[in-house]
Order: sequence, then structure tokens, then C-alpha cells
Amino acid sequence: MSFAPLANDTFLRACLRQATPYTPLWLMRQAGRYLPEYKATRSRAGSFMGLATNVDYATEVTLQPLERFPLDAAILFSDILTVPDAMGLGLSFAEGEGPKLARPLRDEAAVARLAVPDLEQLRYVFDAVTSIRHALKGRVPLIGFSGSPWTLACYMVEGSGSKDDWRGVKSMLYSRPDLMHRILAVNAEAVIGYLNAQIEAGAQAVMVFDSWGGALADGAFQEFSLAYTERVLAGLKRSHEGQVIPRLVFTKGGGLWLEQMGALDCEVLGVDWTVNLGRARALVGGAKALQGNLDPAALFAPPAQVAQQARRVLEAFGTPHTGPGAGPTHIFNLGHGISQFTPPEHVAALVEAVHTHSRAMRPQVSGKA
Amino acid sequence: MSFAPLANDTFLRACLRQATPYTPLWLMRQAGRYLPEYKATRSRAGSFMGLATNVDYATEVTLQPLERFPLDAAILFSDILTVPDAMGLGLSFAEGEGPKLARPLRDEAAVARLAVPDLEQLRYVFDAVTSIRHALKGRVPLIGFSGSPWTLACYMVEGSGSKDDWRGVKSMLYSRPDLMHRILAVNAEAVIGYLNAQIEAGAQAVMVFDSWGGALADGAFQEFSLAYTERVLAGLKRSHEGQVIPRLVFTKGGGLWLEQMGALDCEVLGVDWTVNLGRARALVGGAKALQGNLDPAALFAPPAQVAQQARRVLEAFGTPHTGPGAGPTHIFNLGHGISQFTPPEHVAALVEAVHTHSRAMRPQVSGKA
Repeated sequence: MSFAPLANDTFLRACLRQATPYTPLWLMRQAGRYLPEYKATRSRAGSFMGLATNVDYATEVTLQPLERFPLDAAILFSDILTVPDAMGLGLSFAEGEGPKLARPLRDEAAVARLAVPDLEQLRYVFDAVTSIRHALKGRVPLIGFSGSPWTLACYMVEGSGSKDDWRGVKSMLYSRPDLMHRILAVNAEAVIGYLNAQIEAGAQAVMVFDSWGGALADGAFQEFSLAYTERVLAGLKRSHEGQVIPRLVFTKGGGLWLEQMGALDCEVLGVDWTVNLGRARALVGGAKALQGNLDPAALFAPPAQVAQQARRVLEAFGTPHTGPGAGPTHIFNLGHGISQFTPPEHVAALVEAVHTHSRAMRPQVSGKA
Repeated sequence: MSFAPLANDTFLRACLRQATPYTPLWLMRQAGRYLPEYKATRSRAGSFMGLATNVDYATEVTLQPLERFPLDAAILFSDILTVPDAMGLGLSFAEGEGPKLARPLRDEAAVARLAVPDLEQLRYVFDAVTSIRHALKGRVPLIGFSGSPWTLACYMVEGSGSKDDWRGVKSMLYSRPDLMHRILAVNAEAVIGYLNAQIEAGAQAVMVFDSWGGALADGAFQEFSLAYTERVLAGLKRSHEGQVIPRLVFTKGGGLWLEQMGALDCEVLGVDWTVNLGRARALVGGAKALQGNLDPAALFAPPAQVAQQARRVLEAFGTPHTGPGAGPTHIFNLGHGISQFTPPEHVAALVEAVHTHSRAMRPQVSGKA
């Protein structure tokens, strides 16, 4: 496929630990309910699924935040549960509630029947990726994504978001680890196919969201989440049409396992706001770029405080790599998805503060002859 | 006050890093809804507040788990929000919902009015402590407790449990840190008085529950939670009637700050299930006893798997201190409160496994002459 050349490659360069003139930033869930224009499109689409499965709507909302803010990357607008839906579990969204799966994996027979879905069922996602790439006209790179095998399994067993601290999925994990492993093996294979197809459709980086890895006990995390993220990474395309495709992994609540995650075969590790970026850099910064980690709640404060908190995050990471070759780099983001209650003008203050302050933190090239 | 001598001092010895013949255990929220006899008492009391404010009922439910299981400590049955209630914020529990405060701290004027409560308002708690001590007849020690200044503030600002990831309290923290610090200073003074009065009434150890410290960003945790826990610890009585009173601190989700918490002036640090106990021991084990950290969800599995997971936790900590003097010790607990959905017979399997396996892990005294 042929797309316009990339005008702003700071995000991709930072992923590959190459020097950039400032710290690139994007925001998890940057296309979303805090934007009135998103709500307008959502209302025209009739439902969340109507929005997510329609190529034109998905393209439109993916680009909305870029019209407002000079963000350094776009991320595919889609839902994390498209894969379980394609597996036949029946995804729906009731108004004002989270996602629901009509046919969760409640017994051994259901687990035995589970199979890697036909990727044709997910064609609408790949078509959206290609459509967004065209619409972006090379302004910034496009990130594709998937839930991690474990995070998908949480919803697939529970049938919805966390009830009682993931009682259903954890009961299965502790009672029947064999069933859990079967689900995770199917999920890993499905995620590999799903992300590779996004790459082929035009995604310039891919991110694995392990949103619920942090709910696991030490030991269980390594066995039921990390091992399958590793399996996914091993199956991903390294490059496409001559371009390296950076792979990002984010485990919410995974800060305690950062040293072990440093050994993952990926380019970027995302961290949430509980992590000290300077400490994270000391642990893994040499081998990986780091992404994060402003508390999304900091965006509820007035612009001056938002700017101050942004500077704190940049300074916790410290001076980024500025020379030739690869070195420690930072991609600014929130530590989790942006809240629907965020005033958009606070986001503008954040973007401005990150770009300005991160430029100022880099050694200045002297003007004197 | 005069109470019966203590028959089982393994918990207090382990708190003070003295050798014990086995690893003592108790369970956070061990008196609670998973026990049918608790539900029966609760139903007689009419409401949760009717239960918590009545000395006889509080005594009865505190002892219920000890009648079933050979636990090594009792913990005062009470609610974490008794202190905000005594401050005039108006605590109530709607059926099937969490706690509600009728007059949360929504503006500067409300924060300015906040004052340390008259401890006479909490007399029912101290009377319950004395009543429980008598009823225990020295079987096991009694632990008193309080929420941490930060955790109390979460409810005091929000008016209830977490909505939208503590949006209200975090908005205040980032927008008006001065107001937040005033609330926390009042809370710290109130908690000091509250815990010292529990000690005078008969509590043989006291625990500070920082249940929501883990919701804070790195930096904010140190400033808004840890600093005030430190202030509380500095104000607590070290001993009472010749007995050392161990002080326990538990920050749920605080594993990343364990090294900093190792510097706290307390005897025991509680950790949740995301922490590797061996690693925690290496970080702080020399200076503090560690308490935790089985995933409460492990108790949903059948007894054989419960026993297996209990052994994993014991073995993660490793061989406990067995010689004279002070050394690394472990107090077995869950990583959070026990779930209402736990089958009581699984708890029996846990207690049996912890006692048996931890005895077996200690070097055996040879029977040969």
C-alpha cells in the first residue's frame, strides 16, 4: 500500500531510542468522550458498536484529537473486545454501562470450543486502519493495538468488566489453571494474527494493553500474563515494507515487574503513574524506551498546575538521549486512559507544556560562531 | 486494666521479629460476611451501624472467626469511617451499598471547619476494645486499627467509595494541595488520639490501613500519604502497662514504595499479593516484620489448591528467623480483606496449611540424645 511520507516522526524515533528535538506525546484514549465532537459522532452512529465497526466513523473520531492538539501519534479507534466478539462471544454495550459478552466462558466445554477467529470477521478493523492512514496524510504515525491475552481472558470469562475483583476469572485460574492456559494460548495466537493484519493494513507501531495484569499475584502474573505477552511479541512482524514496526507493552499496575518486563522482546514499555520514571529508567531505560505516566486526574486541575505536573514527569525521567545512535528515550503519555471528565483546554495546556519544557531540557545548540 | 495472661503470643513475637514455632496468621476482615454467624448477628443488629456501635455485638462478631479457626490474632470489629463520623460528617450505610458520608468536604469553608473530634464521641469503640479483651480471656492478642489520614480523606472528600478513580479527592489534591494538607493534618492528629485511646482500652497492637495509598502517583504518595502515616507513627504510644505495642502499616498497592516504607518507625509492613515476599524481605526484612500476602481470590479454589498457594507464599518469604534475638519474621495474612464469597471451609484449609507447613519449614530439633 502507498501512503504519504511521514511529516512528524518523533514518536517512531523515540520508540527506537533515537534522539528527538522534544519529547513526543500522545494520550491513551485520546479519541473519546471528553471531546464534544466525539460525542456528536457517537450520537450519529447510534451506538458504540455502530461507531467502532464503521470505517468512516472510526476514521473521523481517530483524527478528532489531532485537529485540536498537536499530538505526535494517532491511535486506532476501536474496542479492546473486538477479538472475543470475532470468537463468537457476542459483544454489546448497554447505554451507560461497560461492555458485555453474551456468551462468556463459564465451563470446560465452552473453553474446549474456543478457537482462533477467522480474521475476515475483523476486516472492519483493518479497513479502518488503512482508511485512517490515508486520512492522516502522513501528519503523524498510526498506532494499532490489542488487549493482551490475559486482559482479553478477564472479560471472556467474566462476561464484563471487573465484578468483585475478577472473582470468576481468578476462580478459574486458581481452580483450573489448565483451562486458563488453554484460553490464553488461543488468545495469544489470535492477537498475533490480529496485530500482524493491522501492520499489513498500515499500522506503524503496535501496542499490547495488559490492562488487568496488575490484578494478578506475583508468580501468577509471570505465568498467566507475561508469558503470553512474550508469545505474542515473538509472533509479531518486525518490519513492514522496509519500516521497523515498534512494539509497545503496557501493564497497568505492573511497576513491580518492570525488571522482568525489561527482558521482553519489545521496543517500549508503558508505565502507570505509581512508577518513578527515573527509577524505571535505571532499571530498564538502557534497553527500552519508556512511555508514560502522568496521573490522568492531574488533568482535572487548572492549566498552570497541569503544566507543573507535566514538568514533574519530564524531570523524573531526566535528560533524554540527544546524541547519535540509541539511548534512553521517553514518550510522554498518561498513566492510563484520559477521563471523560477532562476539560479539553487542560489537554491543550498539557501538550504545550510537554513540548516546550522538553525542548528546554535538551542541551541548547549554541548560536555563537 | 487487668486482663488474663496471653496464651498464644506468636503474633506479637513475630511483630517484634522474635522466633516462633510456626508462622502466625490472621486475616484482614476475618469477622465478616463470609461467615453465616456474622450475617445472623448483623441481622439481629438491624443495620451495619447498629452492629458496629454496639459493644456486645462488636464483641460477639470479633470472636466468631476464632471459634471456627485457630487464628493467632483477633482484630477489633469496627468501621474505617468512625473517625470522620465523629468529626460530624454523618456516616450511614445503605443496604447493599458501601458507606456514605452525608456532609463530605466539598469546599474551602467545609475544610476550614474540620476539627479533631472529641474522643468521647468514639467511646463505643474503646469500650468494645475492652469488652473484646475480656471476652478473649487471653487466647490471642487483640489488634486495634484506623484508616490512614489519606485513606480517611478519600472518603471525606468523595463522600463515598471510589467513583471515577477518586476524581473528587484527586481534583482537590492537584488543584488545591493546601486544602488537602489541612485535612490530612487534622486526620493525623485525630488518628493519633484514636489509636492511643484504643491502646489504653486494651489493644495489644495497632494497624494503620492505607487502603487507597496505591491510587496515588509517585511523589504524591510520599507527600500526601506516607508523610502523614509517619506523623501518626511518631505520635503513637510505644508501650502500655509494660508491654510493647507493635505498630503495623499496610498500603494496598504500595509495593513500589516498600524501600521508602522500610524507613517508617513501625514494626510491621503489610504487603498485597503483587509483592514478592522474598524480594520484600531483601529490601526491608532486616528492619521490619512482613505481613501478607495471599491473593484473597486463591480462597475460591478447592482446599488442595488453597494449601498449595499458602505454601507458595510461605516459601516466597523463605526460612523465617528461628534463633535468639531479632531476625526476619513473617505474619501470614491475605493481601487484602477476605471476600464475602469465600467458603469458610477453605479458610480452615488455609489455617491448617500455614500452621503445618511453616512448622515443617523450621529446622527440626533432633530427638536423638
